[in-house]
Amino acid sequence: MSTRLDLTQDVGALTARIVDIESVSGDEKVLADAVEEALRALPHLRVDRDGESIVARTGLGRSERVVIAGHIDTVPVADNLPSHVEDGLLYGCGTSDMKAGVAVALKLAAALDEPARDVTYVFYDCEEIEAERNGLRRLSLDHPDWLTGDFAVLMEPTDGEIEGGCQGTLRAEITVRGRRAHSARSWLGVNAVHRAMPVLEILNAYQARQPVVDGLEYHEGLNAVAIRGGVAGNVIPDECVVTVNYRFAPDLSLDAAQEHVREVFDGFELRFTDLAPAARPGLTDPVAGAFVAAVGGTPRAKLGWTDVSLFSGLGIPAVNYGPGDPNLAHQRGEYVSLEKIADCERRMIGWLRG
Amino acid sequence: MSTRLDLTQDVGALTARIVDIESVSGDEKVLADAVEEALRALPHLRVDRDGESIVARTGLGRSERVVIAGHIDTVPVADNLPSHVEDGLLYGCGTSDMKAGVAVALKLAAALDEPARDVTYVFYDCEEIEAERNGLRRLSLDHPDWLTGDFAVLMEPTDGEIEGGCQGTLRAEITVRGRRAHSARSWLGVNAVHRAMPVLEILNAYQARQPVVDGLEYHEGLNAVAIRGGVAGNVIPDECVVTVNYRFAPDLSLDAAQEHVREVFDGFELRFTDLAPAARPGLTDPVAGAFVAAVGGTPRAKLGWTDVSLFSGLGIPAVNYGPGDPNLAHQRGEYVSLEKIADCERRMIGWLRG
Repeated sequence: MSTRLDLTQDVGALTARIVDIESVSGDEKVLADAVEEALRALPHLRVDRDGESIVARTGLGRSERVVIAGHIDTVPVADNLPSHVEDGLLYGCGTSDMKAGVAVALKLAAALDEPARDVTYVFYDCEEIEAERNGLRRLSLDHPDWLTGDFAVLMEPTDGEIEGGCQGTLRAEITVRGRRAHSARSWLGVNAVHRAMPVLEILNAYQARQPVVDGLEYHEGLNAVAIRGGVAGNVIPDECVVTVNYRFAPDLSLDAAQEHVREVFDGFELRFTDLAPAARPGLTDPVAGAFVAAVGGTPRAKLGWTDVSLFSGLGIPAVNYGPGDPNLAHQRGEYVSLEKIADCERRMIGWLRG
Repeated sequence: MSTRLDLTQDVGALTARIVDIESVSGDEKVLADAVEEALRALPHLRVDRDGESIVARTGLGRSERVVIAGHIDTVPVADNLPSHVEDGLLYGCGTSDMKAGVAVALKLAAALDEPARDVTYVFYDCEEIEAERNGLRRLSLDHPDWLTGDFAVLMEPTDGEIEGGCQGTLRAEITVRGRRAHSARSWLGVNAVHRAMPVLEILNAYQARQPVVDGLEYHEGLNAVAIRGGVAGNVIPDECVVTVNYRFAPDLSLDAAQEHVREVFDGFELRFTDLAPAARPGLTDPVAGAFVAAVGGTPRAKLGWTDVSLFSGLGIPAVNYGPGDPNLAHQRGEYVSLEKIADCERRMIGWLRG
């Protein structure tokens, strides 16, 4: 089977074509090659490649440059390929998250040889796995000049609504210690599991903030995501570890979020194990305002963490906007509405031409 | 190397001999054969065997019958065989727990052809592993008539002191449930780890009893020995399980102990996973009184669980009494004092002749 991509196909058919080229994280080469080949055929774009990530840019000298980005990898196939259409819905691995968004971006790249804004298209690898391998992160470190821009749209599934910024996330392990003893003489030991009670008290009493940032309302959360302790059925445990996850609004820097967690658990042994900053929605910037006006709808806050924070780290305001349904991501029965893909394409063309 | 046992050797040398015949739980055949052969050479004893357990009895028609029991298996050898003597201490796997006690019992069996009390000697297998394989348990179920008696001495290591009865032990899993949700939208879920707080509150507030039973003071304990909960770093946990261990004094039956734990955790989902009854010390019985008077010392309560509860279940008062040091059991550097073995032998002979 040829893996050539025909960018003159309608966007629904192109999505199906891309879905049928398997590209589980770490195994994106065939699809990356096809994307690169299709983009290199377009004379109005400069194309660069790093690993399995492709960046294609117009160079029209416009006063604004916008970035349109999407990852080309998927979670593992779950017996849900090849794709098929049923009642206007395209089923298959990666349809919603986020090959529909990738197809829209490719259509825009081919169709708009003279957009009103310069455009940088980014197709990257390894978004669905550990952060260290993330292709967009790699590009931001190795080729920050490829990613410059005034505004970015990440075409993750948002059900066709604009989602601004994203909340940050951090994890910390709180370790409570005790002293082992045989449980038949428990008073000779100190029970670390019993001593974890105040940690749970703090979590139960915690009042999560719902701050408004750049006009969007966020909703934080501080939660235990794991607890473990115990040596054997006849031993008083000498250690209990509570893993907490703090989801914080974009009015807090990563440092401020860590400081907050340290204050909340003042006096406890605490170690951060995972840190990802939030991203401000940036919808108060004029360039973002033009996007919102062109695409329509009422922007809402993004509560989960997404790669928009990488753009935010580069000083580029960014939003999530794509045709997929976030609730279907990573599900075996994943699908995307063909009508929503086409609608997304129309709105994006309207914005970039306008 | 011959595995014949010479019961005319002094008790220290006999202990070393038995220690040097490896008998890790499940692998006792060679030692069991040697014990059987040595006992069958004694015309004043009737010898029976079931698997790797040997029972030898006098049949003198005395008004009292006492049982002297010990397990012949050990925990796995930890590069601590063959045995060796240093400064009056015999080192090696099983020296303290409890081949010294076994050697004393074999010496008594050989030396006392006309004891003042009829004696039943029990040498059994598989004490150091799961309760279902315990040889004494098997005998109590398959041959309860072999074990009849008025009083029993289990020659487990007690450092030469009489330890009466034993505390019971039970384990229960308390399961707290919640509802999963993505941790970025934690308010859509119910956090089972947070909901486990009241279980820890109960454990922290629990006042353990120290009741006096048959003149000995016990010391109970109710403790978490494990806690676990957590699905993934970004998921609100829907289940948290706290495993508690209740060590209870012998004034409570197993049923009463379970009822107590159910009351303490009233309203929680609770499942018992492990149940072992306590044993009353029985030191108020005249037959036990004679033993205490002959052996000397001040009896103390046994806090850990031992096989005396199996005798208790057969209606036979039982105590722990042996030359080993309980603190050395299962340690690689395990040893036993040769003087304590000889002292134990003397006292037991004095009791059985008296």
